[in-house]
Amino acid sequence: MNVFHQLESTPEKEIFGGWFGRMIHGENMTISYFRAKAGSILPRHSHPHEQISTVLEGELELTIGEETRICRLGDVAVIPSNVEHQARALTDVRVMDVFAPVREDYR
Amino acid sequence: MNVFHQLESTPEKEIFGGWFGRMIHGENMTISYFRAKAGSILPRHSHPHEQISTVLEGELELTIGEETRICRLGDVAVIPSNVEHQARALTDVRVMDVFAPVREDYR
Repeated sequence: MNVFHQLESTPEKEIFGGWFGRMIHGENMTISYFRAKAGSILPRHSHPHEQISTVLEGELELTIGEETRICRLGDVAVIPSNVEHQARALTDVRVMDVFAPVREDYR
Repeated sequence: MNVFHQLESTPEKEIFGGWFGRMIHGENMTISYFRAKAGSILPRHSHPHEQISTVLEGELELTIGEETRICRLGDVAVIPSNVEHQARALTDVRVMDVFAPVREDYR
């Protein structure tokens, strides 16, 4: 397995309209660096993977289950397995998501 | 489980001399936001947890197994389970590490 990675040489994939991510996969985790323009919506969905999201830049409206918060730099959300969530970029945003286990659908 | 977290209200722990981290634990992952001053060394060690490290600020000399690289913003390292690694802060650094499974020793 490749140990050292550079994000700028990792190809970017549009995983949903307006959400562009660079993904790096380990054995047990996938880490994804996303960007989206203001107004981009990631509709309500769920997956068996646990997810931890960290906002790196901008304002992200995040709904997890029935709770909605506006998240900014320094905010971290832990989304349990199979819990429905959605996101809306209130500004241009950069968000780092980690998933366990690996997101095979992101390969 | 608490879903929304703010790093600034998460207590900081010194996990080794000069390495200060704020840790958030999920079910299957721990995410740690570390800072260290220039010159701080994290000696060679290993653990069963897979680790993915992302440099957020500064220059980090990272040795994984027998390979050494200087990592900066945009560099990501995937450290497999039980592989020895060490780190040296060449400048003041901020690094984000994720571990799977949870680092029970960081609770």
